[in-house]
Amino acid sequence: MNRNSQFNHIGIVTRPQTPMMSAVLNELIAFLCNEGLSVYLDSEAQADNQINPQQLQYCHVIRKSDMGRRCDLVIVLGGDGTLLSVARKLAPYRVPLIGIHQGHLGFLTQVPRAQMITELSGMLTGKYLPEERILLEATVVRTGEDVYHSLALNDVVLSRGALGQMIEFEVFINKEFVYTQRSDGLIVSTPTGSTAYALAAGGPILQPTLRAFSLVPICPQSMSNRPIAVNDTSEIEVLVTKGSDARAHFDGQVFFDLKSMDKVCINRYRNSLRILHPINYQYYKTLRQKLHWGDQLV
Amino acid sequence: MNRNSQFNHIGIVTRPQTPMMSAVLNELIAFLCNEGLSVYLDSEAQADNQINPQQLQYCHVIRKSDMGRRCDLVIVLGGDGTLLSVARKLAPYRVPLIGIHQGHLGFLTQVPRAQMITELSGMLTGKYLPEERILLEATVVRTGEDVYHSLALNDVVLSRGALGQMIEFEVFINKEFVYTQRSDGLIVSTPTGSTAYALAAGGPILQPTLRAFSLVPICPQSMSNRPIAVNDTSEIEVLVTKGSDARAHFDGQVFFDLKSMDKVCINRYRNSLRILHPINYQYYKTLRQKLHWGDQLV
Amino acid sequence: MNRNSQFNHIGIVTRPQTPMMSAVLNELIAFLCNEGLSVYLDSEAQADNQINPQQLQYCHVIRKSDMGRRCDLVIVLGGDGTLLSVARKLAPYRVPLIGIHQGHLGFLTQVPRAQMITELSGMLTGKYLPEERILLEATVVRTGEDVYHSLALNDVVLSRGALGQMIEFEVFINKEFVYTQRSDGLIVSTPTGSTAYALAAGGPILQPTLRAFSLVPICPQSMSNRPIAVNDTSEIEVLVTKGSDARAHFDGQVFFDLKSMDKVCINRYRNSLRILHPINYQYYKTLRQKLHWGDQLV
Amino acid sequence: MNRNSQFNHIGIVTRPQTPMMSAVLNELIAFLCNEGLSVYLDSEAQADNQINPQQLQYCHVIRKSDMGRRCDLVIVLGGDGTLLSVARKLAPYRVPLIGIHQGHLGFLTQVPRAQMITELSGMLTGKYLPEERILLEATVVRTGEDVYHSLALNDVVLSRGALGQMIEFEVFINKEFVYTQRSDGLIVSTPTGSTAYALAAGGPILQPTLRAFSLVPICPQSMSNRPIAVNDTSEIEVLVTKGSDARAHFDGQVFFDLKSMDKVCINRYRNSLRILHPINYQYYKTLRQKLHWGDQLV
Repeated sequence: MNRNSQFNHIGIVTRPQTPMMSAVLNELIAFLCNEGLSVYLDSEAQADNQINPQQLQYCHVIRKSDMGRRCDLVIVLGGDGTLLSVARKLAPYRVPLIGIHQGHLGFLTQVPRAQMITELSGMLTGKYLPEERILLEATVVRTGEDVYHSLALNDVVLSRGALGQMIEFEVFINKEFVYTQRSDGLIVSTPTGSTAYALAAGGPILQPTLRAFSLVPICPQSMSNRPIAVNDTSEIEVLVTKGSDARAHFDGQVFFDLKSMDKVCINRYRNSLRILHPINYQYYKTLRQKLHWGDQLV
Repeated sequence: MNRNSQFNHIGIVTRPQTPMMSAVLNELIAFLCNEGLSVYLDSEAQADNQINPQQLQYCHVIRKSDMGRRCDLVIVLGGDGTLLSVARKLAPYRVPLIGIHQGHLGFLTQVPRAQMITELSGMLTGKYLPEERILLEATVVRTGEDVYHSLALNDVVLSRGALGQMIEFEVFINKEFVYTQRSDGLIVSTPTGSTAYALAAGGPILQPTLRAFSLVPICPQSMSNRPIAVNDTSEIEVLVTKGSDARAHFDGQVFFDLKSMDKVCINRYRNSLRILHPINYQYYKTLRQKLHWGDQLV
Repeated sequence: MNRNSQFNHIGIVTRPQTPMMSAVLNELIAFLCNEGLSVYLDSEAQADNQINPQQLQYCHVIRKSDMGRRCDLVIVLGGDGTLLSVARKLAPYRVPLIGIHQGHLGFLTQVPRAQMITELSGMLTGKYLPEERILLEATVVRTGEDVYHSLALNDVVLSRGALGQMIEFEVFINKEFVYTQRSDGLIVSTPTGSTAYALAAGGPILQPTLRAFSLVPICPQSMSNRPIAVNDTSEIEVLVTKGSDARAHFDGQVFFDLKSMDKVCINRYRNSLRILHPINYQYYKTLRQKLHWGDQLV
Repeated sequence: MNRNSQFNHIGIVTRPQTPMMSAVLNELIAFLCNEGLSVYLDSEAQADNQINPQQLQYCHVIRKSDMGRRCDLVIVLGGDGTLLSVARKLAPYRVPLIGIHQGHLGFLTQVPRAQMITELSGMLTGKYLPEERILLEATVVRTGEDVYHSLALNDVVLSRGALGQMIEFEVFINKEFVYTQRSDGLIVSTPTGSTAYALAAGGPILQPTLRAFSLVPICPQSMSNRPIAVNDTSEIEVLVTKGSDARAHFDGQVFFDLKSMDKVCINRYRNSLRILHPINYQYYKTLRQKLHWGDQLV
């Protein structure tokens, strides 16, 4: 029990099957134990890494799915991809996340590994910038029944499969018909996802605090099918009218095979994700670095 | 005085210097007088048209600038362009507008001239769909002093002038530095403006109810300077660092010549504009028609 | 034997498995036989349709693969898709094609079914506009060996498969390294293909007579990876460096599964395809119709 | 007279009114005189710089317009902009150019100032890579008369002026009507210009050896008005139908004010420009550096 820390039950998740992660993991466990905090180690992180046995005895090794109930903070060692997959699992529990990147600055993983201990020392005592990020919730409805359900922090992508043929679908926003589209697919993106795949497909950047989704067509046959940004209270329905090999992807990490006349229903998930950033975090500074924007002229 | 009408003091504005407007104007005045409503005719509309003298005696001919104080509804005969210029003048007074288009369906002028009387009969008694549209307020600051001020319903555009040279400027959002840009200019657009010039420049469509602006670069030299959508509570500052012939345009209708080191400050105007649409108005239906999107397959 | 006709051995191919094609097919056979011309019917066309037995006896029913050697003209009943697949098969034989569309004007199939007989009467006697279209030839090289080979009239597309993960590859033009790209794929397009998938992916329109290919990235991660147009004498090599489910597609009709470190080598095929258009054919008129460009103001 | 040098009469042009140019200019003159070559100094370069008087006596100071007749090579000290303006003047005389950049690598000015003497030593004796670049020739026709004429190495741009209103025009290629366009303007670009303004406006990159122009709309109202690449033998006509403040710009350096119904006729200029590059010049290497493309993975 550490009186200065705002958090006492700290989960740790690492990028799966990543060599060279053991050293930083041991360093992190040692630091947290030393601070008198309870450490909950993801069982996959234990399996993937060589944990110092003396430290391991002070850790609770649990499954990722149990972290939400037992932790009040989860630290992610990896990149944005790892954080995305943790976020989808922990969103129902409102546990805040801190991301430690392993060399490449991420949009979500802002703490560099080299400054991990220094930064965490401050952050545990409240020196952080919290950010709320909305998530998407998607349900696939087939002949009236829900056949699949997933969350997404970046995006829900309806896309053609391996056949290389365009697919066709109808889009509805709040039950109002928007358009019929013939394309490689459609990205429904959060502000978080707006700098990922949606950007590559020509979508706008959505400021993280904007309560909006964007609908970004992927190579649409009609050039006037342009990206649309809508309120995050909108209910979006995509009805697959043609596309024998269409798929729904969630954060590009999990997917579900669709059939013709499947409906994908997308709305904002009831909880948002809380990410804790270093105190000097600036969103546009990250954008400048990642997108190679010019610096301010002195 | 008409007990059924929600509105009693009706202003009328017409597109300036447009032949063939007199007939529809006389028809409108006759209808409103007949309903027992007070009619306030824009003095320019009177000058531009042949008004039936017997009807003219029942009209108050006033300047556009006085309409805000005296009318509780203003009817615009013209296209979206005419409505934009009226909106900038009347926004301080919160007077709702109805737009009657003269042949080409507009995003803002939804009532066709041919159905004008039928539609207005219903709308005056409350059969309408109201829509609130945000406006921008822009101030040009030169060496610390405000030298120009304007509202805009579509967009504030900072752009190169006739020299054909790219200009350079720095953009700040809520005092945070965003980027230095070299381009033909920058469009700051409301949702209303997102289907106008901002769309031609590659910007996203913003649903009218989204409380957001978009910042859309015009032919930026750096291809990663992509459109950004921000909350409508954002304060945007654009500092012109290079551009001897730069100009600020408001709705493409009025402009102000800028000098190097001028700062253009843009935020949401305190009032929004209330537009009354026919009861069967559907935003996406208008988009489909205007952008030639495909129809729903039966 | 018809002395007025420039062509005496006429092949006929129809869109596979298309109901309602029998009537037009019988009409065409009757017309050609009546003109005294030898008719070579694709065996698939015979299988798919109800041919009038009395006419059938005057036809040579042969396989598509034999048409190149036996015909001096092939007529395609179908759309652009059908013509593409015939073109790849017949390109080695330099047999000219005429395309009869079944309702939707095509870029390649310009003769409407309703005017088929009238148009053909003229075209057989030389009243046509010939157009030469270049084709691509692609070879997949795996560990030094050619493992696949195909022609393409529209495009060779290297693309991600069903996994929904971006792929990575290196591009070389005439052995000179161009770039490493991370994207959904790359389209190498002829002028013919420049109005098909390449256009949806953001590529330029290439005038049919331009001896050029375009390289059009599909949703590239780096926004500066823009379309490039190169001489049709260029040798293009694409080396797949990452992409366990990458595929090469030819005209979107046939494909070959790629492995990491496969090389796709693309160059212009030695023969071009000769298409015969109606005498009043205008390329830009077709573009205006298909792309909904505005007409000339009178 | 230098027997080893391929060139004997060397012109020198410098970027106008650029401080800090004198040192490099003196260094260059000393080198060339020492090699026994005749030096022709642009009179503007003399006026703008402090030339060592002892060297000046060995130089012929002449006007830029006389260089074409008297020099067999012209060296440009400056950036791509300076080279463009020299190229338009010297194109009629087929004099090759070498560009020395002053710090920022250019597409056309490839020799860095620091290696100037070393590189030139080799290049004068034939160790260079020559490149032929096509130029445009444009004539403005008003009521049947030619009222303006200019060459362009990058682009001819028809554009709106300061009013900020879109202009309207009709485009013809080889007398065939292409489309009516409403936009901020149209760029007709050479391969050289395809990495300049045309790229910012969304145009394709054209390989330098491709004998083609691109027509790139600037913010067109219709999203299907996409860039088109045509043979360099094409005659392009642009008829301004609406645009009281339209202008034609040539390489963004000179311009001519247009009136409604002016016709701008554009074709390839009869001569091409010969640029001499260092022997290790690679076009795509320059592109990678200038466009921040990724390097080859080892």
